[in-house]
Amino acid sequence: MRTVVVTDPPRADVGDAEKLGEYGVATVHEALGRVGYLGPEYRPAWSGARIGGTAVTVVCWPGDNLMIHVAVEQCRPGDVLVVATNSPTTDGLFGELFATALAQRGVRGVVLASGVRDVVELREMGFPAWARAVSAQGSVKATAGAVNVPVVLGGQVIHPGDVVLGDDDGVMVVPRADVPRALTAGQARLDKEAVNRAAFQQGELGLDRYGLREKLPDFGIEYLSYEKWAEDQR
Amino acid sequence: MRTVVVTDPPRADVGDAEKLGEYGVATVHEALGRVGYLGPEYRPAWSGARIGGTAVTVVCWPGDNLMIHVAVEQCRPGDVLVVATNSPTTDGLFGELFATALAQRGVRGVVLASGVRDVVELREMGFPAWARAVSAQGSVKATAGAVNVPVVLGGQVIHPGDVVLGDDDGVMVVPRADVPRALTAGQARLDKEAVNRAAFQQGELGLDRYGLREKLPDFGIEYLSYEKWAEDQR
Amino acid sequence: MRTVVVTDPPRADVGDAEKLGEYGVATVHEALGRVGYLGPEYRPAWSGARIGGTAVTVVCWPGDNLMIHVAVEQCRPGDVLVVATNSPTTDGLFGELFATALAQRGVRGVVLASGVRDVVELREMGFPAWARAVSAQGSVKATAGAVNVPVVLGGQVIHPGDVVLGDDDGVMVVPRADVPRALTAGQARLDKEAVNRAAFQQGELGLDRYGLREKLPDFGIEYLSYEKWAEDQR
Amino acid sequence: MRTVVVTDPPRADVGDAEKLGEYGVATVHEALGRVGYLGPEYRPAWSGARIGGTAVTVVCWPGDNLMIHVAVEQCRPGDVLVVATNSPTTDGLFGELFATALAQRGVRGVVLASGVRDVVELREMGFPAWARAVSAQGSVKATAGAVNVPVVLGGQVIHPGDVVLGDDDGVMVVPRADVPRALTAGQARLDKEAVNRAAFQQGELGLDRYGLREKLPDFGIEYLSYEKWAEDQR
Amino acid sequence: MRTVVVTDPPRADVGDAEKLGEYGVATVHEALGRVGYLGPEYRPAWSGARIGGTAVTVVCWPGDNLMIHVAVEQCRPGDVLVVATNSPTTDGLFGELFATALAQRGVRGVVLASGVRDVVELREMGFPAWARAVSAQGSVKATAGAVNVPVVLGGQVIHPGDVVLGDDDGVMVVPRADVPRALTAGQARLDKEAVNRAAFQQGELGLDRYGLREKLPDFGIEYLSYEKWAEDQR
Amino acid sequence: MRTVVVTDPPRADVGDAEKLGEYGVATVHEALGRVGYLGPEYRPAWSGARIGGTAVTVVCWPGDNLMIHVAVEQCRPGDVLVVATNSPTTDGLFGELFATALAQRGVRGVVLASGVRDVVELREMGFPAWARAVSAQGSVKATAGAVNVPVVLGGQVIHPGDVVLGDDDGVMVVPRADVPRALTAGQARLDKEAVNRAAFQQGELGLDRYGLREKLPDFGIEYLSYEKWAEDQR
Repeated sequence: MRTVVVTDPPRADVGDAEKLGEYGVATVHEALGRVGYLGPEYRPAWSGARIGGTAVTVVCWPGDNLMIHVAVEQCRPGDVLVVATNSPTTDGLFGELFATALAQRGVRGVVLASGVRDVVELREMGFPAWARAVSAQGSVKATAGAVNVPVVLGGQVIHPGDVVLGDDDGVMVVPRADVPRALTAGQARLDKEAVNRAAFQQGELGLDRYGLREKLPDFGIEYLSYEKWAEDQR
Repeated sequence: MRTVVVTDPPRADVGDAEKLGEYGVATVHEALGRVGYLGPEYRPAWSGARIGGTAVTVVCWPGDNLMIHVAVEQCRPGDVLVVATNSPTTDGLFGELFATALAQRGVRGVVLASGVRDVVELREMGFPAWARAVSAQGSVKATAGAVNVPVVLGGQVIHPGDVVLGDDDGVMVVPRADVPRALTAGQARLDKEAVNRAAFQQGELGLDRYGLREKLPDFGIEYLSYEKWAEDQR
Repeated sequence: MRTVVVTDPPRADVGDAEKLGEYGVATVHEALGRVGYLGPEYRPAWSGARIGGTAVTVVCWPGDNLMIHVAVEQCRPGDVLVVATNSPTTDGLFGELFATALAQRGVRGVVLASGVRDVVELREMGFPAWARAVSAQGSVKATAGAVNVPVVLGGQVIHPGDVVLGDDDGVMVVPRADVPRALTAGQARLDKEAVNRAAFQQGELGLDRYGLREKLPDFGIEYLSYEKWAEDQR
Repeated sequence: MRTVVVTDPPRADVGDAEKLGEYGVATVHEALGRVGYLGPEYRPAWSGARIGGTAVTVVCWPGDNLMIHVAVEQCRPGDVLVVATNSPTTDGLFGELFATALAQRGVRGVVLASGVRDVVELREMGFPAWARAVSAQGSVKATAGAVNVPVVLGGQVIHPGDVVLGDDDGVMVVPRADVPRALTAGQARLDKEAVNRAAFQQGELGLDRYGLREKLPDFGIEYLSYEKWAEDQR
Repeated sequence: MRTVVVTDPPRADVGDAEKLGEYGVATVHEALGRVGYLGPEYRPAWSGARIGGTAVTVVCWPGDNLMIHVAVEQCRPGDVLVVATNSPTTDGLFGELFATALAQRGVRGVVLASGVRDVVELREMGFPAWARAVSAQGSVKATAGAVNVPVVLGGQVIHPGDVVLGDDDGVMVVPRADVPRALTAGQARLDKEAVNRAAFQQGELGLDRYGLREKLPDFGIEYLSYEKWAEDQR
Repeated sequence: MRTVVVTDPPRADVGDAEKLGEYGVATVHEALGRVGYLGPEYRPAWSGARIGGTAVTVVCWPGDNLMIHVAVEQCRPGDVLVVATNSPTTDGLFGELFATALAQRGVRGVVLASGVRDVVELREMGFPAWARAVSAQGSVKATAGAVNVPVVLGGQVIHPGDVVLGDDDGVMVVPRADVPRALTAGQARLDKEAVNRAAFQQGELGLDRYGLREKLPDFGIEYLSYEKWAEDQR
């Protein structure tokens, strides 16, 4: 691994990132064709946060948060810190003091492939964090990694400057080049969801609304009364 | 697998299901002889719900929620939707739009062997959900499964029409035929717990209350002062 | 395993245990040199509790809570009940009735290598519990274990009378002999954190504050503009 | 749970079970419509066994193998012992001495929801075993369970007398009533696989052989030269 | 996801891939600076294979192997098939018939984020496979994915044409552009390991050989006789 | 953690350790009262080894094998190297070169809380290793730990000089003070197993041999013909 700190990478528009954050993870994930989700292992340290920001990426050695110290300086307002480790760890690489420093710089939140700690304090500060574990286990500062290189978390590649979204459904990445499409498709999906929601509230069925009913025979689905079915079981 | 939708299976009395729901999972599980619990993997999407209802069962292919669309139409007031998949998956097969459709039909909640999404919206709607994961990962509608056939979740067989209970301790099934016994035994256990609780609040010990103290020698349990024990360690 | 109940082991000072509880798990863990943490598998049954107490230890057989009944009698005000099992289990060995009995005796909370149940009632009672699972699965009372012998939970040895701390970051043990050092070092760390927090709030960087910046070349870390880095990738 | 030993349940034909065993798990699973597989957690204690037999079922308490002792007496030549536990455990409930007793009775193997031990001796004896763990952890004989009642392992219901198949791909159940269909469909699938294998050995493609090529446009699949695709990425 | 099949991507030299395969995963991983390893979840279906080849990549829907059928046609001699899924699954997407078709085309092996089946047959054929599970669970052919687009397995990005290495230590990727460096550095590491091995066989210590002994005081490591240490514990 | 290397701790007799190794893990574990087993996560890197030796203990930082280099020098003939990490990791901290150095010093094997690599070479050398993962992931040498202090692996405390046993059933520790009892009880158990084995080979039942049959009514176990049971289910 090249132990490098890349400075001032281009990033998506911060206002766009915020708007995508408001759309929410599930909506944007669907709008983009069901890609970019980091999977169910990434859980919020506290419930109710909903953010979007631009990624500053970090690679740490397990049990070592030296590079997070290095990365803080690279963060600008509207960023989200994204921390990978070069092998799996649950150690709590990030806590309240880092959050204080990042909040002061206008950073919107943090996403960690490792653990997070000080979850009470993070909730009280209102600093959003997603991680794969909650762990008080502390770190050394002994081994170099990298800042603002592409990283992989939850099976997704995240480049510095990409948009990262987080809410109670988890975390997703929107590649910088896909932001315009995400904005358009996300708004379209919100609109469509609103119409569908209204229809469902009035008792319409998805079977009809999505045109599935007429396809059921093609799927080989048969309807059977309970009596007939019970008879077949004998 | 037979790709069948079984219509109008007999179901337990909805009022009975509600009453068992009020008793709670731990109480009914004990009352029935410690059977029927789906295990610790089934967690509530949000805390504080406590329900009982009658099962409408679904089998989906992983990553595919076609059959949930089919199942909605089979749901009646007082039901709980129970979703199995034919192989393990964490994908978020169920979210707010389904919940809207089900709530409109009087459904009490959903239990999923897969993941669930839109957890913020489910909490705001007050629609209860239990699942093995929270995941924004979306689904296709490409492969047939079944509705209202017996399913297995968490090592328990659930037939359509069985009673399903959920609260913060998890989920359990009460087979339709066992509902009368569960009502009687559950109420008896509640009464017994109330008496025991009062006794414990006044300092009585379970050792005495449950008649365990006199059995301790049979268990081979000896009492030893710390000093004596420490001496034996040397 | 010797099936023994050791009575009246010496214990750390209860007031000291409470004070360490107020310091919090992450702080004391760091202050003692990053030892004693039970790992991320131990999670609170409900959020917001922060306690410190002296350990009463129990070893149960999986699926069997006989020895917790025996242990209740050994608990004194200021204690924390610590339950190991002799092989892994998620069963809910502990619930509201035990909590009632323990609360009546002045016990501060419980830590379980197994599961816990009645989490709604525990939250309502304000009785803190940490466990590796939430599970309604009930227990028998058929096999002897031990009380107040050394146990291992989460890779940490806990002796009766040691201090056990719990909060939303998890659980840790402070060996009885280390309590004085933990008090001094914990207070020192709190003071240092307060000063660092103030500095970070004013925009100082950890890089400078911890003297890391001048060591970066020794770590082999180079800084590169994005343009230069992108060029190197081609 | 009713603590009952059911004697002499009807069972599938032992010769049929053996024949299905020779077909193998993957083949019979496919032939029956992709049902009955116990999932990837069930692994052989040693590689290379391939069996089919009729189920004798047992429910044990975790950490307790009393009921296996009871079940041995119920086993007949051609049976497979199938051991569930009423909550999850990895303990080694079964080892060489049980295998000796079962082999003497003509039992073909064992399938355990728990752990297994003495794997060297089992391999040397040639006694097949599938389990979710290898564990030397020993058991008590303190709590009653049941023999020859329906059990659930790996999400599959197994009735006494059903056919159970095991090989290096895992374990599956064929309900007694489905055995004739499994024999026919299994043989048909073997025949079809032989023909397909021969075709593939001569370079034919599944795309053509299974008629998939003409459906690719309906799936929305487009072909693109690398050059064109690379251009689109820019 | 764009449902595309990219044809004829450039690939690394097949002879180079084979040579790296002979060096082995651990050696090349170290030689390249400890990057590219897919982690301990990727295990060989059978022991003893050691290969290197050029990646043909596939993305499948969970429970669906349509795209593997499509990918077979894109494989050339010296390739390794690399199968990702767009959400986690353990299903056995690959077995003996696919292996037959691939072997006929000169493919060296397969790496699957899902499960694999027919492990006995694969061992007998000598067709190497690495996967995250062994599972007989079968697949449908209902949903489109992609072939020869970049994929992520085990936290590593794999582009079509990259070199993929597999042996009993697991799987790693060498990006196409890094192959020349991997050849040089891998050979250098082999040479160094041979010299170190010889030294260790003669009793030299790594402490001396790697110049660590003189750094021990800087690490803060002290040596203490057991007697002195035991005294300090009192 | 005190970063200390404790030299020349007293150790159990090496011949005794070897003899216990021959008895095997399951036998000695039972003989000592079912204590000391490290659990099912510790698996052999290759099958068929069966050893006993005296522990040299190491604590490493995750991703860092500096202290193993330090520990090699402390190893004497008949020892087993036992490696803990201060937080969970799967990295491959140990491989062929370490094994070469240890074999040269007469060390019998290694037990690792982390991963192991070079498993092919270890098998060829015949150097036994048990670990929680196989992983090629390499290590740095940057952070101090300790040698020959008490460690915890798999929930068991291991002191330097204790006896460690490993075979295909896993790993266990026999505290130094318990070695004489383990030798006597282990031999007694082997003798008893031989007698029981012979009895089982002649068709005797454990039910009778262990005096369980007469206790079955006390356990509340009833026998029921299948016909009667089936009738009760209706």
